[in-house]
Amino acid sequence: MCVEKTPWEQVIDFHGHTCPEISLGYRVAQIAIRELGIRPTADSELIVTAYTHSCALDAFQVLNHVTYGRGNLIVHEKKSHVYHFQYSGTSEGLQISIEAQMLEHLSGADDQLTRREKQNKTLEAIQFILGTEETLFCTSQKV
Amino acid sequence: MCVEKTPWEQVIDFHGHTCPEISLGYRVAQIAIRELGIRPTADSELIVTAYTHSCALDAFQVLNHVTYGRGNLIVHEKKSHVYHFQYSGTSEGLQISIEAQMLEHLSGADDQLTRREKQNKTLEAIQFILGTEETLFCTSQKV
Repeated sequence: MCVEKTPWEQVIDFHGHTCPEISLGYRVAQIAIRELGIRPTADSELIVTAYTHSCALDAFQVLNHVTYGRGNLIVHEKKSHVYHFQYSGTSEGLQISIEAQMLEHLSGADDQLTRREKQNKTLEAIQFILGTEETLFCTSQKV
Repeated sequence: MCVEKTPWEQVIDFHGHTCPEISLGYRVAQIAIRELGIRPTADSELIVTAYTHSCALDAFQVLNHVTYGRGNLIVHEKKSHVYHFQYSGTSEGLQISIEAQMLEHLSGADDQLTRREKQNKTLEAIQFILGTEETLFCTSQKV
C-alpha cells in the first residue's frame, strides 16, 4: 500500500532524523507558504537566504522547493536564525526572525543524560517549537 | 491514486527541473549506491564531498541521503566533477571522477536557439549522459 506522506513526514524522511532545528525549519517553511504561497513559474523563482546554517535548511528544500543544488537556497553565516524569502524579479519578500527565547531550545541535549532522557528532552523541545503561539515563536514581516 | 515514484522522478521532483547536471548527479549517485550500498546506521554516516557545486548535488541529497542541512554534503570548489563518498568512522570510500568528454554536454544551450531547439539539445545531452557506457562516463575507484 502506498500512502501520501504528510509534509512533516516528507521533511523528516529527507532530513534523516528528528531534531529541534528541523522542527524550527518546518514551522518557518509553513509560515512562508501561508504568507507567500508556492508559485513555481518560469518567470519567478523563490530564493531563500538563511543567516545561519542549521538542520532547518532541509525543511526549506522540501517544502519551499529551494535547493542547494539549484542555488536558490543561500546561507550568509551570521549565527542568526533570520530567514528571508524573496521571489526573483519581484519586490515581494518576507523576513522571519526567530524569537530569542526559542533559541535555547535548539541546543543539543546534555551528554550526561541517558539515551532515554536525551530523547525526552529532544521531544519536549520539538513540542515547544511547534506548539508555541506564533507571536512568541517569530516576528515575520513583508519586506 | 498514489503511485510510488521512481528514483528518477524523486530526484527531478525535488530538483525542480530536468537538466544535464542533475542527470550526471543521478548517475553518480546510482553508481555509489551499487558500489557502497545504503546503510544508514547510528554509527556510520555517509559523507559526500563534491569538488564543484552544480545541480548534480541534489541527486545525492535525494538518493544517497546526505543533505546540506545535516552537513554531510560538502563542497570543496575546485571546478572539477569529482565526487568522494565516504562512510564516517570507516576507511571505506569511493571516488568517482567524470570523464572530460562528458563535461562538454553540461554547458547550457546556445541562447540563439529557439525554445524547442534548446529543449531538444538538453534532452540529447541527458540521453548522452545517462546512456554512455560506464567506462566512458567515469572512473571510479575504492579509496
